Amino acid sequence: MHRGKTARLWALLLGIAALGSAAATPRDALIQEYCRLLALPNVGTDKAHVRENAEFIAGMMRARGIDATLLEGDTADTNPVVYGEANVPGATRTVVFYAHYDGQPVNPARWAAGLEPFTPTLITAPVEQGGTIVGPCLGTAITSPTWRIAARGAADDKAGVMTILNAYAALREAGRRPRVNLHFFFEGEEEQGSVHLAEILAKHRARLGSDLWVVVDGPRPAPGYKVVEFGVRGDINVGLVVFGAKRPLHSGNYGNWAPNPALRLATLLAGMKDGADHVTIPGFYDDVVPLSDSERAALEKVPDPGAQLALELGIAHPDGGGRPFAELLTLPTLNINGIRSGDVGAAASNQIPTRAEAVLDLRLAKGNTAAGQVQKLVRYIESQGYHVLDRDPTDAERRRYERLIRVDVGAGYDAQRTSMDLPIARAVVTAVQTTTPEPVVKVVSVGGSLPLIVFERVLGANVVTVPVVNYDNNQHAENENVRIDFLWDAIDTIAAVMSIR
Amino acid sequence: MHRGKTARLWALLLGIAALGSAAATPRDALIQEYCRLLALPNVGTDKAHVRENAEFIAGMMRARGIDATLLEGDTADTNPVVYGEANVPGATRTVVFYAHYDGQPVNPARWAAGLEPFTPTLITAPVEQGGTIVGPCLGTAITSPTWRIAARGAADDKAGVMTILNAYAALREAGRRPRVNLHFFFEGEEEQGSVHLAEILAKHRARLGSDLWVVVDGPRPAPGYKVVEFGVRGDINVGLVVFGAKRPLHSGNYGNWAPNPALRLATLLAGMKDGADHVTIPGFYDDVVPLSDSERAALEKVPDPGAQLALELGIAHPDGGGRPFAELLTLPTLNINGIRSGDVGAAASNQIPTRAEAVLDLRLAKGNTAAGQVQKLVRYIESQGYHVLDRDPTDAERRRYERLIRVDVGAGYDAQRTSMDLPIARAVVTAVQTTTPEPVVKVVSVGGSLPLIVFERVLGANVVTVPVVNYDNNQHAENENVRIDFLWDAIDTIAAVMSIR
Repeated sequence: MHRGKTARLWALLLGIAALGSAAATPRDALIQEYCRLLALPNVGTDKAHVRENAEFIAGMMRARGIDATLLEGDTADTNPVVYGEANVPGATRTVVFYAHYDGQPVNPARWAAGLEPFTPTLITAPVEQGGTIVGPCLGTAITSPTWRIAARGAADDKAGVMTILNAYAALREAGRRPRVNLHFFFEGEEEQGSVHLAEILAKHRARLGSDLWVVVDGPRPAPGYKVVEFGVRGDINVGLVVFGAKRPLHSGNYGNWAPNPALRLATLLAGMKDGADHVTIPGFYDDVVPLSDSERAALEKVPDPGAQLALELGIAHPDGGGRPFAELLTLPTLNINGIRSGDVGAAASNQIPTRAEAVLDLRLAKGNTAAGQVQKLVRYIESQGYHVLDRDPTDAERRRYERLIRVDVGAGYDAQRTSMDLPIARAVVTAVQTTTPEPVVKVVSVGGSLPLIVFERVLGANVVTVPVVNYDNNQHAENENVRIDFLWDAIDTIAAVMSIR
Repeated sequence: MHRGKTARLWALLLGIAALGSAAATPRDALIQEYCRLLALPNVGTDKAHVRENAEFIAGMMRARGIDATLLEGDTADTNPVVYGEANVPGATRTVVFYAHYDGQPVNPARWAAGLEPFTPTLITAPVEQGGTIVGPCLGTAITSPTWRIAARGAADDKAGVMTILNAYAALREAGRRPRVNLHFFFEGEEEQGSVHLAEILAKHRARLGSDLWVVVDGPRPAPGYKVVEFGVRGDINVGLVVFGAKRPLHSGNYGNWAPNPALRLATLLAGMKDGADHVTIPGFYDDVVPLSDSERAALEKVPDPGAQLALELGIAHPDGGGRPFAELLTLPTLNINGIRSGDVGAAASNQIPTRAEAVLDLRLAKGNTAAGQVQKLVRYIESQGYHVLDRDPTDAERRRYERLIRVDVGAGYDAQRTSMDLPIARAVVTAVQTTTPEPVVKVVSVGGSLPLIVFERVLGANVVTVPVVNYDNNQHAENENVRIDFLWDAIDTIAAVMSIR
């Protein structure tokens, strides 16, 4: 499909029902509908609101002629998958388009003045770069394609739902008939580690056969070229709590005598990496599967964004010992998401805190297992003299063990990588290439995580990812946003992929 | 003065005016007067109420035959010192008795049901240990000497004012004539860091000459023996902020490449101490004045509370390399009051934070200076590759320096120590010894901090501290309380000190 044609496919989106009659243009109508979706809180633990999201998306699908249904798990309170099929008579191949509609937890206090996670708001640019607020998304006409919509999930990953459904609608309005069966699968628990995904896939295995899953999630690289991603890292969170005295102590009356849990936690964390930010936990990298020849060749063609990112992010000297950015993403990580003990700022007092907490995020490379990485971490902690608990200590344990730590292991999953030689995956690359004059880059593995391994393990499925949103989207953090022209371009890109044979 | 006599000195307190005719006994009359003082809010920032306290105390002094006056500072809104003199014809020496009448800020919501900071209330025992409420202090007769009065300032340090003035009244009623001039100095800004104390001392220097200051503040040790304290540590706070990327980054998309400020701060803090919790910052202990022979001898006689405290606080192995508790309090400290980066718990997200903060509390030993300890810390930080700022970095600085840290230095003051060989200080110990059969313990330095160095610097004064209240008084916290029999005993103790030659 030629770029000149697809670039205006959105203009054909006139007939979609329920898009709001107040909208001035078809583009505005789509944005108004999208912002109604973004206004629904989507933190995965907020079960009632999550279900409102699912019902809204099912409505969007029905408005586009897709027979939508909610796939439930067996476990109570599982957030439903919104599922639909658009089958083509005579088609022999099936492609499933995946996105997730749940979002990361929010801390509204961290959002910039005038922005709220679930009040979609138009901004001229990222607020961190001096962007200003245009006004509420709902009811405001878009006059610049580079404006952004700020809201939790605007980029990650309601954008996937929005662009997949509108790509299909665009093809349909244009009278272009797909050659493969198109199925739609929108998950509601991705940001919670997809805890019930395997259960849902297994339960509904009969209708989930496919030749390829196309995941629409994650940002395009900063320089703007398009990519098809063949792998993701796995991920698991680990919470740590180091304990001090049973009650907070006056730092003068007890200083030099009472152990400080903040210092102990700092020491424990500091010992996990060397000066070059290489993880020193024994065996941490040992089970990583080496790159294949085609993967290594692909890596060499990835433009290195390091210098540009460093400039933009204010980083004088990145971690990684000078290795290319893309290569670093094929290795496991150990990241401190957060650390807290006592108080800082105006609330600080001269005390020795009772506990110190950290949350770690372990990204996994192909070959690592989530359980294995956690085991290496726990063994390291034990080697530092800690007695490990999965709860707060008893008085007897406090008396017995000099160093006590609580380790809370989250739900996690392993990395996944699809072969770069798979024909249908190569067809996706070719399709995306029709929408851009620049070479499409094949990515061995992105740094982020999706539970794609579950599709491989439960369904034997092949998976590739086509990311569509702007890279500077504050994904997972405050002031998350999506740039509107990226949404339009995404609709073109996905429509091209939907047109493969 | 023999214990048998002084123990009933309070019984002679019959003639003091303005004590309330409703009181059933002289003891009750003193408690009624004290509770009227405790009912006056005394948070230092509450200027109007603080002045009511000062006027009330001046009235107490006049009722006891002391010519009271308020010493004002030069700075507007300085809380006044309540000052008075009881001079003895022919006396050649002068002792100033110090207490402070202001209290720590209050959070009424934290106080137990039925207790309010400025409604003095009788309780049978600490509410945390199952104590129950007897009733309002005002109007209730005391039938048990181990009851407590719960109110802000009840222990810290209106108890100092109450017991100093009643000790003087008791001597007077008993017809015992002091041999030294007795002066009274009650400060109103101690809990705010005594910000104008040096100013007031300098302004009124002419009348503040003395041979010794006796500070009546702080709790007696838990085991109940009596102490005379010869020193305090100094104190200064330092805030640290380590910077990462300019915006929060997805821990997967940037993990292994973007530096994590929480890890960097952890590494920096961990490097400040060795495995034995000894500070490794070069020179940290170098300027500490070694203990004198008499100080070392005194240290050896201090009962060690470590084993009991460790049991009570749930500490299996205290810091300090096995050195006695009291000796550890003569050394400088480096304590982490609080540390924070990103989020933990339910708010945690998989991100690389933009900054990591810590607040440190440096206690100072004799010989250290606040500026000097901070300088050692800053030099250590610089030796770890950090460029030190006193504000957030500019973009140019972020591009130039690999490691950036903001260091915010608070107001601080140095330690103070009075020689144990000073004859008048030894006379205080001897006097206190007359009120107890157990050996009085001479404390080289307490772990906490008071700006006693100001008396030494501005007036060239000698200072000792005679603490009188129960240790379990919830000082600085909710449900602050004083045990009534400790007040009676304190009156005896101070009357004995007032009787030195």
